[in-house]
Order: sequence, then structure tokens, then C-alpha cells
Amino acid sequence: MTTNISSDSPIGVFDSGLGGLTVLRALEKILPKESFLYFGDTAHVPYGTKSAETVTQYSRHILDFFVEHGTKAVVIACNTASAVACTTLQSEYEVPVFNVVTPSVEFASTITKTQSVGVIGTTATVQSGAYTAAFNSLNRGISVKEISCPLFVPLIEEGWAETSIAREVAMQYLSPLSTLNTDTLILGCTHYPIMADTILSAVPDHIQLVYSGETVGEQLKHHLKKEEKFNTENALKTTRFFVSDFPQKFDELGSRFLGRPLENVTHVSLL
Amino acid sequence: MTTNISSDSPIGVFDSGLGGLTVLRALEKILPKESFLYFGDTAHVPYGTKSAETVTQYSRHILDFFVEHGTKAVVIACNTASAVACTTLQSEYEVPVFNVVTPSVEFASTITKTQSVGVIGTTATVQSGAYTAAFNSLNRGISVKEISCPLFVPLIEEGWAETSIAREVAMQYLSPLSTLNTDTLILGCTHYPIMADTILSAVPDHIQLVYSGETVGEQLKHHLKKEEKFNTENALKTTRFFVSDFPQKFDELGSRFLGRPLENVTHVSLL
Repeated sequence: MTTNISSDSPIGVFDSGLGGLTVLRALEKILPKESFLYFGDTAHVPYGTKSAETVTQYSRHILDFFVEHGTKAVVIACNTASAVACTTLQSEYEVPVFNVVTPSVEFASTITKTQSVGVIGTTATVQSGAYTAAFNSLNRGISVKEISCPLFVPLIEEGWAETSIAREVAMQYLSPLSTLNTDTLILGCTHYPIMADTILSAVPDHIQLVYSGETVGEQLKHHLKKEEKFNTENALKTTRFFVSDFPQKFDELGSRFLGRPLENVTHVSLL
Repeated sequence: MTTNISSDSPIGVFDSGLGGLTVLRALEKILPKESFLYFGDTAHVPYGTKSAETVTQYSRHILDFFVEHGTKAVVIACNTASAVACTTLQSEYEVPVFNVVTPSVEFASTITKTQSVGVIGTTATVQSGAYTAAFNSLNRGISVKEISCPLFVPLIEEGWAETSIAREVAMQYLSPLSTLNTDTLILGCTHYPIMADTILSAVPDHIQLVYSGETVGEQLKHHLKKEEKFNTENALKTTRFFVSDFPQKFDELGSRFLGRPLENVTHVSLL
């Protein structure tokens, strides 16, 4: 299938699962006239525990799907795929590919006054060192503290994001930030915005959070403006959802992340 | 590849990931002279969030692999695959296939005095209703309380199985058992034996735990005896490990579940 790409073509957004819906939610707010295709690779979730080769291969299948559907831009909403697959995808595909790491790093570097930034994410994201590498490449002498918080995702998926147990877990993970001079904390996992209040309650008051959905949304908006690719058609904008499997608690989790019930969901088997 | 099956052929054991190593550990103890092949489908872990069709398809690929390697019996160490794929696999393959649900249910039904049994597992296992169905098919009037404990696996994988946070989570999940007359609790997830002490501390003193590795091990031993398939060769027994991906913390988690470092690990791509 070949589709002509124009300004009213949709924007592809993908994640290993449903967490990327928090990114989509931010993108829809920043770009309210655009159409989106969201792909949740729920048959392979989570990417964080898989090898870079495997994650890159899964991502290629999704990019092929987006190209077939004529997307004018692609956002990798998944931190793991952003860290390990983005550069490869950018070199292999013509469609502009955005990731959730770089925009947050650039934004955090402009707002930190203490030159000390924290990043929280899954074990895989932290072990990849992608955030520290991105800060280092800016060469601004910003010190970075990356902390893995592997229990946050299951707490959020359990609906316990704002319980005393979640706060106790958050305080355990985030206590190193209290002794540092950190004033900026990047939420380096798509799930974490759901737990933002608990996270804020577990860190010193002066720390401000950076949300990757917002930072990549601003970068994407800038790109569309520069390339004159804003959707100016009067056609109604649409958002369609594709998943590679229907997981447990799909509707409950989906609407928790997206902020509204999911409609137009299609099952697609890519393998 | 075709291999002749004899009494010194290995026993295949598979799980969606590494948790099934607690089952293998119990099997090695009960059947110390047998050789084992362990397959951890780490590229597709976890099965619990996938559809029955997807889990059955993954399981078929592993059964094919075991058949190629001439196994004389197969143990499904994964509760999800036991619940949704075992009957299909038993009808499609000649090799005897054992699961971890039935033996625990049969054992629990013989030891409960109050006729009230609890089962804890992942959300997927509990939602499958496999344990309740298995108890009902025994027709002994045993009442069953199934409780999903989705935070136990991440707590165990974080190495927090014996922390105060884990105990708080366990008390939250298991509090319904205090008001019931339950005297027997099945650990319906391969990870849970690692957290047994914390679980015991969160339930009334008279409750005894049932471990699926032990119950399926006794059933397998009975089968091998009846079929005269015990390994009587003087050849040294071996245990070999196969994984479909090398996940994060592979060595750490593997040795935590198995009780010793993993050796002889081979990467196999089944898809």
C-alpha cells in the first residue's frame, strides 16, 4: 500500500505498550488539529527487558506499518526504543523520527539553575545510559543522576500510584536526590506522569518535573511549522489505535493513560 | 533433527522467563538423576498479559524445540501457559505434558482440613479461573479464594522480597484470608517461593503453603516410575539452558531463582 504524504497525513506514535498514551495525550493537547496513529506493541511489551537488537527489529516492523499508512512524522514514545533504536531508524527511514529522550534533555538543560538534573526510569532505560550520554553531548557541564525505579510501573498499573505504599517506594528510590543539589527531574518513563503527585511528595520542594510528552510535542510542533506541514485541511482530525495483542486490563489501563476511553482500536499482527 | 527417546532422554521444562527455574530447582531435587532442558522464553516474557492464542502459539514453538531434542516428558512451569495452553498441547503432541496447576490442586485437596484453600498468582492466572475450575472438577466441595498479587513479581525481581515494603504489600493483598477459614495456600506463580517467608508472615499461623515445583515433581516422578522411564544410565546427568533473549539482570535473577549460577546457556531464536 502506498499513500501520498501531505500536511493532513497522520503522525505515528508508538510504544511497547499502553504507557505511550500519556505521550499521545500531551501531543494531542499541543497539536489539537493533527491526526494520530498510535501503535502499542502489546504482544512484545515490555521492551525494557529485551536486547537492543530485538527492540530495533520490533521497531522496524512498526515503522514499516507507519510508512504504509503514510505518516508524515513518527514519535517513538518508548524510552527504551528511543535509547537503543532511534538512530538506526533515522538512518533507515525517510520519515522524520522523533524520540522522547533528546527533547527532555534539551529542555531540562535550559531550565536547570543548579546544573544538576535527575532522571528516573526503568532499569533498562537507566542501564542504557542514554540520558547521561545525551546530556554529555550538550557539553554544558550538567551533572546527571539517573535512578531506576522498576516498581513504579507495576504500582501504576495496579492503580496504587497515590497510595502510602507508592509514597514509601518513591521515598526509598528518590532519597539520593535530597543530598544532591538537583532542581530538575526528568520523568524518563511514559507511565510516570500518572504518579507525578506522589513523586513530587517524595522529593525536595524546589524540584520541578520534566514530562517527555510535552517536550517532544514542542519539538514536533516546531518541526511541522518549519516544514509547513501543519494540518490545515478542514477534514476532521482523527486518532486511531493499533495494538499487536489485547492485554489484560486493556480498557482500564488505556483510559488511565489517555485520560479518556480508547475508541477505534484495531488488532494488528506484525509478526 | 530426530532423536530416539529413551530412559536417559532429558525432561523439558519451560516458562515465559526465568521464574520457572524455581520449578526446575525442585525437580532436580526430587529427580536428582535426570537430565533437564530448560527453555526460558525471555523474548516474549511475560505471558500473563498476552492472549490465550498468543501464549499457545509461543508454547507450540517451544514444544517443537523439545520434540526435536528428544525429551521424554515436558513440564510447563508457567502458570499462564499451564492454564491456557496445556490441554491443547496434550492433544497435539505425543510427548507427555505436565502442568503446574493440576498437581498443586490435587495435593492441596488432600491436605486441607477446613476445605478452604487460597490461591495467589498474577492477574492473568487469577482471571483465567484455572485453579477454581480445577478444584471444581474434583467435586470435593472445597471453597477456593483466588487473589491476584501483581506486585509480588516486581518486588522479587527488585530483590525486595523480604523488605518491610514487601510485607506491607503482602498484608494488603492477603488480608481477605484472615477472615476466611483457609488453611492451605497455593503459590500459583513460579516467582513466589522466593518470597515465601514474607507471605507466611502476612497470613495466619496455621496456613501452610503449597509449592508447584514440588507437587509437579512428585507427579512426574510417579509417571516415570509407572512408565519405567527413570534414567538408569550411568551417563552423567546434565542440565542445559535455552533462552530466546538475554534480558537485563539475567545472571542475577537466574541464580536467585535456581539457587546456583546458570551455566550452559544457549540463545535460541524460535521466531
